[in-house]
Amino acid sequence: MTEAEKTEIKVAAICGSLRKASYNRGLIRAAIELSKEEIDGIHVEYLETSSLPMINPDLEVEGTYPAEVEEFRHKVLEADGFLFASPDYNYSITPPLKNALDWGSRPPNVWARKTAAAVSAVGGGRRAQLHLRQIGVCLDLHFINKPEFYLNAHRPPRKFNSDGDLVDSETKQQLKEVLLSLQAFTSRFQGKKKG
Amino acid sequence: MTEAEKTEIKVAAICGSLRKASYNRGLIRAAIELSKEEIDGIHVEYLETSSLPMINPDLEVEGTYPAEVEEFRHKVLEADGFLFASPDYNYSITPPLKNALDWGSRPPNVWARKTAAAVSAVGGGRRAQLHLRQIGVCLDLHFINKPEFYLNAHRPPRKFNSDGDLVDSETKQQLKEVLLSLQAFTSRFQGKKKG
Amino acid sequence: MTEAEKTEIKVAAICGSLRKASYNRGLIRAAIELSKEEIDGIHVEYLETSSLPMINPDLEVEGTYPAEVEEFRHKVLEADGFLFASPDYNYSITPPLKNALDWGSRPPNVWARKTAAAVSAVGGGRRAQLHLRQIGVCLDLHFINKPEFYLNAHRPPRKFNSDGDLVDSETKQQLKEVLLSLQAFTSRFQGKKKG
Amino acid sequence: MTEAEKTEIKVAAICGSLRKASYNRGLIRAAIELSKEEIDGIHVEYLETSSLPMINPDLEVEGTYPAEVEEFRHKVLEADGFLFASPDYNYSITPPLKNALDWGSRPPNVWARKTAAAVSAVGGGRRAQLHLRQIGVCLDLHFINKPEFYLNAHRPPRKFNSDGDLVDSETKQQLKEVLLSLQAFTSRFQGKKKG
Repeated sequence: MTEAEKTEIKVAAICGSLRKASYNRGLIRAAIELSKEEIDGIHVEYLETSSLPMINPDLEVEGTYPAEVEEFRHKVLEADGFLFASPDYNYSITPPLKNALDWGSRPPNVWARKTAAAVSAVGGGRRAQLHLRQIGVCLDLHFINKPEFYLNAHRPPRKFNSDGDLVDSETKQQLKEVLLSLQAFTSRFQGKKKG
Repeated sequence: MTEAEKTEIKVAAICGSLRKASYNRGLIRAAIELSKEEIDGIHVEYLETSSLPMINPDLEVEGTYPAEVEEFRHKVLEADGFLFASPDYNYSITPPLKNALDWGSRPPNVWARKTAAAVSAVGGGRRAQLHLRQIGVCLDLHFINKPEFYLNAHRPPRKFNSDGDLVDSETKQQLKEVLLSLQAFTSRFQGKKKG
Repeated sequence: MTEAEKTEIKVAAICGSLRKASYNRGLIRAAIELSKEEIDGIHVEYLETSSLPMINPDLEVEGTYPAEVEEFRHKVLEADGFLFASPDYNYSITPPLKNALDWGSRPPNVWARKTAAAVSAVGGGRRAQLHLRQIGVCLDLHFINKPEFYLNAHRPPRKFNSDGDLVDSETKQQLKEVLLSLQAFTSRFQGKKKG
Repeated sequence: MTEAEKTEIKVAAICGSLRKASYNRGLIRAAIELSKEEIDGIHVEYLETSSLPMINPDLEVEGTYPAEVEEFRHKVLEADGFLFASPDYNYSITPPLKNALDWGSRPPNVWARKTAAAVSAVGGGRRAQLHLRQIGVCLDLHFINKPEFYLNAHRPPRKFNSDGDLVDSETKQQLKEVLLSLQAFTSRFQGKKKG
């Protein structure tokens, strides 16, 4: 990756957990901070999914989805790429994350031809991320391959403070490398180059 | 499987789709009918999941789950085995099904050491069922291997009538074989034998 | 599992690695030793796969396979269950293990209606074992769910000595529990009971 | 994809089957023909894998691999992308294909940062291709998402003639679209543009 490959991209960050104190949401806050303070040309915004109704195609009426769904789909369309902070629930992704992915896939599929990266804050994410990637084939989402990011939040040294904010500098650096990789991949994928 | 291996088992049937006209729910109705009319020693009951809230561990208060969750978990505990009628949403299982599985897995995991079979009414179920089985390893659910059941409801001859009821006799026979296999497997697995 | 559920079963142990100093092969040697010295009613034998030719259906002539294949298939048929010691090669199982599985699956499939357990000596086995289990659905192999066994041989304390023999007593105990679980599961699955 | 995105790329085509009459090898022959006659700027060459020994890290001596392996790895390094023609053997990829992938992954991994597409000639490839893609995450291979190509060679109309050559024009067109997609994706991924 050269400097020339970096261009401004917009990343929507989606958390797989609804827990308030979710470490995965802490990773997203850290990614937003990194994008503001340490990386040029990338904007990371948190994309809320908790108001989406449980998916039911019957809720689609005359080609229109419920208002929360339409709003969510609009924000997905506006993004260049996605950062999924995905816990592992029983060797797969969580229901809220699958629900967001499925609503976005309703015709027209708003994920198509966009890029993505996945991070996991707690052990087990290896298996969940593999499911996420398989789903991504159907959605036509292109994931970066490297670096893979699996944190084990419960192993010393302490990674998060009592507010659930990421405080470990080594982990921040790893997260920064994920963002840089997503940025470079997205730029190439879109055929955009600076200068 | 000999007659001696058949014993009475209780099967809870869970539909992955919330659609009213879901063909997968039609498969469950057909399984219930088959269990009443054509197979001795198996009871199939429909287990509703649509009232479960989207999973959020914060909803667990002092070891107690929301009332709908407690009721669902109680019914899971009472069953010997499960029949999952699972559509394929983007190469994986649906959010409502994952949600039901995850709520049941909260400690103590109520799926543990039970048996299961999966059926899919519409093309694509092959991939969703593989995800379901991987999740089952974590849940300690034991799936039958054979027969595998993947229907393509949209391929002639007509499988369902306008009420969404299964009307194709060949498909009914295949579904019956799934139930017989689940019955025999569960009986062996529980170490129960008649006579 | 009660004493009554334990009955004599024959386990063929297959190593996914061809390396002489393979830690996975070390796990198999330890399992054989445990079966002789600490567990009644289970016989674990090493089943060599290195002489099998790379699979090519053209090698089947008039319903007969090459001699090494016929011999291997015969030994698979004689076993009640299998212990797969499977490294992770690039997030999946190894070529020699897949080769053994595929040769055994040629008609008639000699794996059908048998039981299995998987163990992995080096980090990463979680992903390889998930592939192995999916392959097992097609082969009609029934895997135990618990305990899952993933060793990280390179993490202290030392697990293997310089001969590649398992020397860590805690790991031996975990391996013993895998064998006991496979024994109980196989006995139930076969509908056999002592006494 | 615009004309500007097309640039000359070199594709190595690898067949998962060793059978002489393999329909998957027939797909590769058709891809080579298409690349010569109908698509500018793409060269598809068949890459033989049948002479590779079954993988055994012990065969690596002082950083050198057996001659056949070195030659194979050199050809992988020379390619920009790969076309995998992958049958489904028991819900996964074949031993010869996994063997080729694993040899190439030995340090330094020669697959890294290259592109790939997968095609399957016979029913079942959906599951094998999902395993292949998961392996690709570890290898740092980037697969195109669309179009997915799963042929059912045994369903009318006839797809291959008695020599195993692809003769169905609709299927040829689908295969051409895979190659065009791989070409465009590779060009973007490499950051190359014509003009």
